[in-house]
Amino acid sequence: MKTAANAGADGRIDKGTVELRPDLLSGVSLPAAVIHEAPLAHNLAWMQRFAEAHGARLAPHGKTTMTPALFRRQLEAGAWGITLATAPQCRAAFAHGVRRLLMANQLVGQANMAMVAELIAAGAEFYCVVDGVENVRQLGRFFAERGLKLAVLIELGVSGGRCGCRDAAQVEALVAAIAEQPALRLVGIEGYEGMIAGGDEIAAVRAYGERLVETVRMLHASGVLKSEAPIVTASGSKWFDLIAEAFDKAELREHYTPVLRPGCYVVHDHKLYAGAMDDVKARHPQLQGELQPALEVFAHVQSLPEPGLAIIAMGKRDIGHEPDLPLPLWLYPLVSHPAAGSTPIDVSAWRTTHIMDQHVFLDIPQDAGIAVGDVIAFGTSHPCLTFDKWRQLLLVDEALEVQDSLATCF
Amino acid sequence: MKTAANAGADGRIDKGTVELRPDLLSGVSLPAAVIHEAPLAHNLAWMQRFAEAHGARLAPHGKTTMTPALFRRQLEAGAWGITLATAPQCRAAFAHGVRRLLMANQLVGQANMAMVAELIAAGAEFYCVVDGVENVRQLGRFFAERGLKLAVLIELGVSGGRCGCRDAAQVEALVAAIAEQPALRLVGIEGYEGMIAGGDEIAAVRAYGERLVETVRMLHASGVLKSEAPIVTASGSKWFDLIAEAFDKAELREHYTPVLRPGCYVVHDHKLYAGAMDDVKARHPQLQGELQPALEVFAHVQSLPEPGLAIIAMGKRDIGHEPDLPLPLWLYPLVSHPAAGSTPIDVSAWRTTHIMDQHVFLDIPQDAGIAVGDVIAFGTSHPCLTFDKWRQLLLVDEALEVQDSLATCF
Repeated sequence: MKTAANAGADGRIDKGTVELRPDLLSGVSLPAAVIHEAPLAHNLAWMQRFAEAHGARLAPHGKTTMTPALFRRQLEAGAWGITLATAPQCRAAFAHGVRRLLMANQLVGQANMAMVAELIAAGAEFYCVVDGVENVRQLGRFFAERGLKLAVLIELGVSGGRCGCRDAAQVEALVAAIAEQPALRLVGIEGYEGMIAGGDEIAAVRAYGERLVETVRMLHASGVLKSEAPIVTASGSKWFDLIAEAFDKAELREHYTPVLRPGCYVVHDHKLYAGAMDDVKARHPQLQGELQPALEVFAHVQSLPEPGLAIIAMGKRDIGHEPDLPLPLWLYPLVSHPAAGSTPIDVSAWRTTHIMDQHVFLDIPQDAGIAVGDVIAFGTSHPCLTFDKWRQLLLVDEALEVQDSLATCF
Repeated sequence: MKTAANAGADGRIDKGTVELRPDLLSGVSLPAAVIHEAPLAHNLAWMQRFAEAHGARLAPHGKTTMTPALFRRQLEAGAWGITLATAPQCRAAFAHGVRRLLMANQLVGQANMAMVAELIAAGAEFYCVVDGVENVRQLGRFFAERGLKLAVLIELGVSGGRCGCRDAAQVEALVAAIAEQPALRLVGIEGYEGMIAGGDEIAAVRAYGERLVETVRMLHASGVLKSEAPIVTASGSKWFDLIAEAFDKAELREHYTPVLRPGCYVVHDHKLYAGAMDDVKARHPQLQGELQPALEVFAHVQSLPEPGLAIIAMGKRDIGHEPDLPLPLWLYPLVSHPAAGSTPIDVSAWRTTHIMDQHVFLDIPQDAGIAVGDVIAFGTSHPCLTFDKWRQLLLVDEALEVQDSLATCF
């Protein structure tokens, strides 16, 4: 079983300006996925503060990590709930103590409905989204037969996008369909601005945020929302600031429940979301601090078969590679320069050229002077598709000492 | 936790010419990865027979599935051993009863070496490959300190390829380095022809196969191989016939251990390896039968937001998407045409246009007439990166009744 959890008490590794000891990695089977505690803690607090500053609740998207220990940290930091993508994800989160579950997806299929019915019967506060009359009919029948109530949000989509109502007429038809199902309780509006692409995206995201707000207002005014503080929710990890601004209104703070749902922020990344963070800062020069990358995958140099080429013992089974191939960050020259006092070397100028199931091809300088057995820490872009490669990730402190092994539940 | 194992006694689904009952999928939470027993059994026997017909042993690459129940089936069908890619994979296979482990990779890192040392001490027959003097030195020291012997194969690579010695001089240097390590026992030659690309690939693969054979002969003649029947091994799932031909010599049958290592054959696929199979048949018109696709992922239609577009409740977390996006095969119109007697509809003309973490975008005819809740079975190309998305896969019979839940150990 692939696990990075076999780091014993001696499974510590040093980094940064700390002295490098050649034996430090000996307790950890590499490749291993590592989360750095300091930037993790910083990100948890930073995003919570950001949401609160805009009068919004935070329901971090849990599908990013599916790591219950991180869900717990997010809730302890003040999160309102956890967002999930599927019924089995909701079941896993609930089993680990998450009581408020926002499934930002349609609930489809008898077995998935049954799973959610069990959660509701067990006391979960559960929400899912609807965007079609047929699905509303199925949900209404299923939950009515079981004497349960299901809280739903209407999903607003964009033309050419993913799920969600494209126009007001579809919303109207859906409201009417929901009203015919006594088991369903319409409590708000949901959207995902991440599907917006092309043209002036910033303007389009702002307009979409306003459309969400206007729609929930309109529905609230018409009396169809069965909630004292209707939900309006959106936001991935790229344009969370624009959605937060759209939701940041005195009226919403007082009479609604605006909810932001970024997921990747918790470990951030080294390129895609790093760039998005730069854009957020450019839009908000007054913003204090920023998200920091917290996730790395450590792997050995496995083979040096030709000058300028290193094969790394890590592949698609260990690290995400979309949209960007793994990003080399730090070389730990455990074999090539084992002398005490050596420090990790910045190798961010090196380039990954290819990735296979179990191997990465790294373009290195002809005079790199590395050796088989050296260790390289890689960053990811983006992070979601790295988490799902692991059943455990290692939480490490600033000296790279392993603090905890975090189980995932994909 | 994501699992397809929650199919109870009622978790059966029909397919093909069998009558379709609208309730049949109700016990299974979709998406679910499904392996069809009949083509699986066929493939197991077919490849074993193919290897034996060429006088070769079969050590199927286990990294494809990392499914111990399939390892067991492969061994029961006559496999000589199981090939793995990493030390943790070897540990997992050994823990599930696989005694002969061929790690077709360099063994790098103290923790991984320690893992292998434990396996050898526990009675595993273990082989790994070497391609560099530094790695040989590390392995020799590590295993000597523990009083253990490590059997190694020299890897032959190709210029511009992955790992492996590029030329005879490197092989010679490696032989000398191994000879200096009493803990190491050189027992053969390993290669992977799958890295050959460009030009006349068929001729290049044949030449590579001959180079492997010539090298093992040369080393055997020089007396450096510490084995009565030295190993020569190669072959992925694309050109296994060409390697088998290169190994099919009376001399090898009598005095060597030729080993083929295809992995994907066990479930085959619907495009990449299906095409490779067509090529194999074209090269060998006399060949009886062929590999059959055995792996599908079943998923619900989740949303029909625009004419001609279906969003499927399945994504990168559930199915591989390289080199080809998921291939729609069969529509089970459970909702749109629930009448008894309806049969699955061939939708292989439909096209997946995009895949996200949890969603697939399917281009469908404007008059497709499907409904949210309908089920579509998708094929993959290739299969490796579907297995690693699941902790369990469902083994089903010809009526799609669930026979077993197969745990993976990625």
